[in-house]
Amino acid sequence: MDYYSKQIHQLIEELARLPGIGAKSAQRLAFHILAQPPESVHQLAKALVDARDHVRYCRECFTLTDQEVCPICANTARDHKTIMVVETTRDLAAYEKTGKYEGVYHVLHGAISPMLGIGPDDIKLKELMIRLQGDVEEVIIATNSSLEGETTAMYLSRLIKPTQIRCSRIASGVPVGGDLEYTDEVTLLRALEGRVEI
Amino acid sequence: MDYYSKQIHQLIEELARLPGIGAKSAQRLAFHILAQPPESVHQLAKALVDARDHVRYCRECFTLTDQEVCPICANTARDHKTIMVVETTRDLAAYEKTGKYEGVYHVLHGAISPMLGIGPDDIKLKELMIRLQGDVEEVIIATNSSLEGETTAMYLSRLIKPTQIRCSRIASGVPVGGDLEYTDEVTLLRALEGRVEI
Repeated sequence: MDYYSKQIHQLIEELARLPGIGAKSAQRLAFHILAQPPESVHQLAKALVDARDHVRYCRECFTLTDQEVCPICANTARDHKTIMVVETTRDLAAYEKTGKYEGVYHVLHGAISPMLGIGPDDIKLKELMIRLQGDVEEVIIATNSSLEGETTAMYLSRLIKPTQIRCSRIASGVPVGGDLEYTDEVTLLRALEGRVEI
Repeated sequence: MDYYSKQIHQLIEELARLPGIGAKSAQRLAFHILAQPPESVHQLAKALVDARDHVRYCRECFTLTDQEVCPICANTARDHKTIMVVETTRDLAAYEKTGKYEGVYHVLHGAISPMLGIGPDDIKLKELMIRLQGDVEEVIIATNSSLEGETTAMYLSRLIKPTQIRCSRIASGVPVGGDLEYTDEVTLLRALEGRVEI
């Protein structure tokens, strides 16, 4: 590849390692970056290094944060007796965006997946059980509605049962605005099973 | 957005500025990056800064390179009397990948576009005309087959005509492996006009 200089080639290779970015996209991104003012490229590089170097797990809920305790756990106005269990910080953000959930979270950083060899010890389950020894009234399991998410929810509910803490699972059904015609069978059946009286 | 730490938020914002990367992709990329070992993130940051800080135009052909003269222009085995005019370094790379072109290049860094307000002075046309005062036998115009590329080719061919240098345009027609059925009318007409005897 002597038609690209060593540094451009290096940049394309590095960008192509990111998920969802193929060789062609990496080239396009690289040449876009080369056309930017140096300051903005330096800023991007700094953001990368800063985020990676300073971000760590919250001591309480294990979300990714830059403080010892994340802003949600540090907020005394929130209901610390209700814990919503999610798979990732992105899922936490999705619920935070609704602006309606008042409790705190627990981020598992994954889900149990025998296929991928991820067992209960590979996610932050032990840490959750330790938290549950404190003053907790309800655990809301909000893992994804995938095979792994369901497996994790099932496993977790069995762990929680003996503790007498209330344990719930977010509802699964037809999404709001969704068309029955285009909804898959499993979701339709789940919506039927989970029907509520009106 | 107090659910993401300041640094994660910053990283997502910076990534979302890249072309073709929306808010969701930026989040996905950011969390992928946070899950990487610090060294690999530092390497990506370094590649960004290195490429941006050291890359410049080749003195001869104006391609992006990290030397004063790019490896193609510095290669004495190549035919320096044949210049292929392309719009971008990526187009140059596309022809280099064929491995069959022996001449050198001239990178315009754009194409004439009255719509976008890009005139002949905004691309490296003057620089090409200066090169043509040297010992040049043929100019092959390989700008894109778009409106802008065609306009540039037309403009350039008129500039070159008085110099008596041979001037050609790459052929336009049905791509190899292409299906006539799925080829647009303009391309079909162009292929017909450009038919060659067999």
